[in-house]
Amino acid sequence: MAKLTAEIKESLAATKTAYFATAAKDGTPNAVPIGAYKLLDDETILVSDQYFNKTLANIKENPRVALTFWGEKGGYQIKGTVTIHTSGTIFTEDVAWVKSLKATLEPKSAIVMKITGVYTIKPGPDAGKKIL
Amino acid sequence: MAKLTAEIKESLAATKTAYFATAAKDGTPNAVPIGAYKLLDDETILVSDQYFNKTLANIKENPRVALTFWGEKGGYQIKGTVTIHTSGTIFTEDVAWVKSLKATLEPKSAIVMKITGVYTIKPGPDAGKKIL
Repeated sequence: MAKLTAEIKESLAATKTAYFATAAKDGTPNAVPIGAYKLLDDETILVSDQYFNKTLANIKENPRVALTFWGEKGGYQIKGTVTIHTSGTIFTEDVAWVKSLKATLEPKSAIVMKITGVYTIKPGPDAGKKIL
Repeated sequence: MAKLTAEIKESLAATKTAYFATAAKDGTPNAVPIGAYKLLDDETILVSDQYFNKTLANIKENPRVALTFWGEKGGYQIKGTVTIHTSGTIFTEDVAWVKSLKATLEPKSAIVMKITGVYTIKPGPDAGKKIL
């Protein structure tokens, strides 16, 4: 597990769209833009699934994911592993949160990402360096 | 192979930053923002590598990639397979092109992506649909 720093948390909060990458069993990567994500705590990100298709199929067979973002306050690549929740408290709270953002959205699952590492993505010789 | 339509080509040309996703042999995805990419022809995208780290390590063991972008004229996810060029005409032309964008950049390799499919990424019931 890795604990996000204040700087990384601010950067994530200032970013409206992140790119959520997964991979199929055969190694084919998949990356999609997402907007419904937030921190649950310093080691955990919630991603709400309204329209996932290949992303959901991939994480059912391979829980490894990467979340990459570059917003108004810089960006990072965060790696982790996920669990999928379609009932229970985590799912219920996800539905309430997403509907508070836009009442017409219908979450299908709540994806909980435990953070395993954070990497720089700023162009330059340090690009890709593991920082957490 | 898949041939990009005029609409997809316009969308790509209007996007300054795309996200380039790869996967390691163990299935860990990696996604990084890139700016130095262009079409070579309707079935082929050139991605210039100045600072790739994990991306390069991944494509050396697994040539499957995804390029996802959302710019001023919408966006798509393009999937393909790559070859890496560090000498020869393709590399020489890549270096000349990148240096014409910014003289201080030093390409390490030219990555040639043959397009195998294109997918919608617009939120909604059609998200993830294969269109090419």
